[in-house]
Amino acid sequence: MAPVKNGRILFNERPEDFPVPGQHTIYDDSETIDLDSVPLNGGFLVKILVLSMDPYLRGKMRKVADLGDSFEIGKPLYNEGVAKVLRSEHPEVKAGDHIFCTLPFQHYTILHSLKDTNGARDVIVLHNKENLPWSAYTGVVGMPGQTAYFGWKEYASPTKGEVAFVSGAAGPVGSFVVQLAKADGLKVIASAGSDDKVEFVKSLGADYVFNYKKEDTAKVLEREGPINIYWDNVGGSTLDVALVNAARQARFIECGMISGYNLAGGDIIRNLSRVVWREIKLFGFIVYSLFPKYAEQFYEEVPKLVKSGTIKYTEDKFIGLEQAGHAMEAVQRGTNKAKAVIIVAED
Amino acid sequence: MAPVKNGRILFNERPEDFPVPGQHTIYDDSETIDLDSVPLNGGFLVKILVLSMDPYLRGKMRKVADLGDSFEIGKPLYNEGVAKVLRSEHPEVKAGDHIFCTLPFQHYTILHSLKDTNGARDVIVLHNKENLPWSAYTGVVGMPGQTAYFGWKEYASPTKGEVAFVSGAAGPVGSFVVQLAKADGLKVIASAGSDDKVEFVKSLGADYVFNYKKEDTAKVLEREGPINIYWDNVGGSTLDVALVNAARQARFIECGMISGYNLAGGDIIRNLSRVVWREIKLFGFIVYSLFPKYAEQFYEEVPKLVKSGTIKYTEDKFIGLEQAGHAMEAVQRGTNKAKAVIIVAED
Repeated sequence: MAPVKNGRILFNERPEDFPVPGQHTIYDDSETIDLDSVPLNGGFLVKILVLSMDPYLRGKMRKVADLGDSFEIGKPLYNEGVAKVLRSEHPEVKAGDHIFCTLPFQHYTILHSLKDTNGARDVIVLHNKENLPWSAYTGVVGMPGQTAYFGWKEYASPTKGEVAFVSGAAGPVGSFVVQLAKADGLKVIASAGSDDKVEFVKSLGADYVFNYKKEDTAKVLEREGPINIYWDNVGGSTLDVALVNAARQARFIECGMISGYNLAGGDIIRNLSRVVWREIKLFGFIVYSLFPKYAEQFYEEVPKLVKSGTIKYTEDKFIGLEQAGHAMEAVQRGTNKAKAVIIVAED
Repeated sequence: MAPVKNGRILFNERPEDFPVPGQHTIYDDSETIDLDSVPLNGGFLVKILVLSMDPYLRGKMRKVADLGDSFEIGKPLYNEGVAKVLRSEHPEVKAGDHIFCTLPFQHYTILHSLKDTNGARDVIVLHNKENLPWSAYTGVVGMPGQTAYFGWKEYASPTKGEVAFVSGAAGPVGSFVVQLAKADGLKVIASAGSDDKVEFVKSLGADYVFNYKKEDTAKVLEREGPINIYWDNVGGSTLDVALVNAARQARFIECGMISGYNLAGGDIIRNLSRVVWREIKLFGFIVYSLFPKYAEQFYEEVPKLVKSGTIKYTEDKFIGLEQAGHAMEAVQRGTNKAKAVIIVAED
């Protein structure tokens, strides 16, 4: 077979604020690959089906990354995704397998070991007994779902009747947290950035859901709070207001702070002294640290809950690898409708 | 016996920034008390010997207190101290006993129950087998010592060889923490606000002690860090710099934030997003919440350690109740030389 194009999304320029497709990231189709004859050298060739687009990737565009390594200028972006094995010389992977791991933003790649591109976690072969869409493995059954599940189990210490506040509640992490909190018998206050998102979060059973662009978070929390648990996906002024409306011994689960990702000087917080007087605990965490403790339980429980509809989720599909830069900008600006996934190819 | 004057320090006016004696607090000696004949109604009359002056009292001067109730305008300040019982009709307290509890800032008072003025904790009868100065019971063996001891036991999770940073390290809490951290085999970086304080903290065994007014905290932490544990007595820009220089999974023990107590708008923090990426935990706490868990162990261990000189402490004595307003201002401005105590009367 003749070589085919192997399009890639390259990191082109460090953004000062929001990452703009065509400027900070570019789509390049100058490379080709011969799928039949490219040497594997003991590795395996995969066709990338789905790539995840997540808020935290903005931090990899900095010279010093917030987490792990920075993206390299002129090299492809990378993130978790699902790929199908086309050919393999690796003893533990065979053609036709579907794998989940960190993947470069391109159509085809060769992997040489079961350590992923980050060198951190193992490549997981997905059995998908529940026959979920592959994209679910980048969302509710992927890193975002694990973030919600692991973080809640480890840090929430919920007591029935307490009040939880979830920001970014329509996203893949937030929407899962809302459902976990309701299952634990809490009153759930939730915020999102559009009326459609608000409707989705209401459908998950949250008690009071509001569009933070239309309704003042401070007033909502004054009326509906004080809050015992704050699941923070956004940081910034929302976090500041949550500190003011925290109950004594509140737990703040610090999952992300997107409001500051695109600000050169970082976000300003004025009410942190409340942590002393109200005995608030702030738990910053990264999902990977909790993986060894909770992953088995997660993969055992969650795909079944998703299949049965007990745990609901939504996706905003960006079709085609060329759309990755747009997906990134949308996620940073919050204009995506739900968890952003890039559908690179059909299975 | 004729009535004697019962001088008091009254809360006179809410400060905007620093509390100035004669303006925000005044000394009033218009009241008298007849020590022989004043009716006790089942309570006990005490002569106040020592009153503690602590940073957190600034928060009680706000309309809405940071902690507990606000001081009332026209009424005496109050804080923990040691008093001697002169007469008693209470079955569990007898003349000659020394007690520790929250006391009003005046010379004599009548207590009616073993709940203290705050209504929160029991009045403690001090046996003082070690024959320590009574003032020690407001410092190293009092609330500040308990703060250090309880907070360290509960939240530090120290591992030998880790690096701890202690701000406000010459104070009664900080100096105790430095000694606990050294006893646990840590490298200790410590900051204080004068050369004399630096010398004192060096004498406690800290590895690198600096005067933050002369040496840039950011540079010290860059060179001596990253830090695994931050014992925060000050908040503000020091906390911000500590966040930048925190090791992965660092523990921040948030004990006080004096840098913001006298600022109308609160302190600005810009680097809180580090808690996510570095998986930092911030533990805000109030000593009283940990009292039930650690108090017995504390009173068993600490007076002995102080008596033997294993745990060292210093005091800055303000002689005479009239000096209380000056002691308060000094503590807020950091011009006190060590733990501030007000010596109200000789035993």
